[in-house]
Amino acid sequence: MIELYTWGTPNGRKIPIMLEEIGLPYTVKPINIGKNEQFDPAYLTISPNNKIPAIVDPDAPGGPLSVFESGAILVYLAEKTGKLLAPSGPARYRALEWLNWQVGGMGPMFGQLGFFAMRSEEKSALAIGRFTDECARLLGVLERRLAEAPYLAGPDYGIADIACYTWAYAGSTFLEPVLGPVYQTCPAVRRWLASVGEREAVQRGMAVPKV
Amino acid sequence: MIELYTWGTPNGRKIPIMLEEIGLPYTVKPINIGKNEQFDPAYLTISPNNKIPAIVDPDAPGGPLSVFESGAILVYLAEKTGKLLAPSGPARYRALEWLNWQVGGMGPMFGQLGFFAMRSEEKSALAIGRFTDECARLLGVLERRLAEAPYLAGPDYGIADIACYTWAYAGSTFLEPVLGPVYQTCPAVRRWLASVGEREAVQRGMAVPKV
Ligand SMILES: N[C@@H](CCC(=O)N[C@@H](CS)C(=O)NCC(=O)O)C(=O)O
Ligand SMILES: N[C@@H](CCC(=O)N[C@@H](CS)C(=O)NCC(=O)O)C(=O)O
Repeated sequence: MIELYTWGTPNGRKIPIMLEEIGLPYTVKPINIGKNEQFDPAYLTISPNNKIPAIVDPDAPGGPLSVFESGAILVYLAEKTGKLLAPSGPARYRALEWLNWQVGGMGPMFGQLGFFAMRSEEKSALAIGRFTDECARLLGVLERRLAEAPYLAGPDYGIADIACYTWAYAGSTFLEPVLGPVYQTCPAVRRWLASVGEREAVQRGMAVPKV
Repeated sequence: MIELYTWGTPNGRKIPIMLEEIGLPYTVKPINIGKNEQFDPAYLTISPNNKIPAIVDPDAPGGPLSVFESGAILVYLAEKTGKLLAPSGPARYRALEWLNWQVGGMGPMFGQLGFFAMRSEEKSALAIGRFTDECARLLGVLERRLAEAPYLAGPDYGIADIACYTWAYAGSTFLEPVLGPVYQTCPAVRRWLASVGEREAVQRGMAVPKV
């Protein structure tokens, strides 16, 4: 059974959503990042970057395999089961484009906005302005894509939607004081958020870990 | 022949290095981001996020295909040619882990450090301190990995090395005033930088675009 090391954050929630969607059994190992449990030396052997999420698959072909980085884990699970990522062709690379866009753009930029605008006591107008502008730009990119296609890779829901959903959700809740007005100008994003959020697997995954 | 839209930046240089390594012919379409050419409406249809790099492959199975996001392009080219990424097994997921680590961590954090410490006239000590610390931490993660394996995915050079090389190189040159002392504590990173930098394909790719 897959071991899932995670916490209730946007990156952490992608993997339980994926596991619920594809129906693979898993056990949850909560890593409380509020208590710095991600820096435990035992965890470092699974997740050398000291972040959540990570998995161990004891039944991987060739012996137990650990995987860190949410984007790599989503691709691993999709390729293991043949689900939620096309094996070839344009739909595969559309999905990988938007997955990389989330991992390299939306995730880090929403994360930095959360730090500078919400969590830091000291305020830098330079940093808040920079990350607010970049997050608004990124939401505009997402809006244009979702105005032309129901899901990020095209007609079918898949791993790119899972990756972007948890962050778009955080942007509309935790970051609402800053980004709320931008979401008001993004009807396609709001339609897609509602449609993904209705999925039972997504609702179950968003509630992990139960602590 | 593949069309490569790029500029001489760390993300932009990954793709000509890859194309040189795998020996696919390509034509370069320079997108001068210093002149905001990435915002040209014609470019938006290829690269909806208005960034470089992007490619168009007129000979993709099923018709011409555009791909944006350097991580997705590297995987596309590896899967098209069967080169520089294992088709399955642990080596494949080690490569995807470190590729995602670069796309989601090293790239955005080195990029923000470049902005706050080097390019911005206004200085935020909060932001400079935050990104200096995170980049030093990331270099420590890279050092630990490269002290245990010759290349990021294990014994063999591949797409994760290409992705991390252009950024590790930028960190040791453009960001040298800030990160130089950290590189002094990273002998495995310096050994790997020298070994990757000696490859002729890497040297040819680093010189693209010629303008
Ligand atoms: N690119 C990584 C980012 C992972 C990440 O940033 N995880 C955060 C929680 S959302 C974390 O572990 N933070 C704790 C820390 O940085 O010490 C991924 O997608 O897995
Ligand atoms: N995650 C993207 C990042 C691409 C990126 O940041 N490109 C930069 C150059 S290194 C760019 O186009 N900057 C121009 C801009 O942001 O307007 C990738 O890996 O392709």
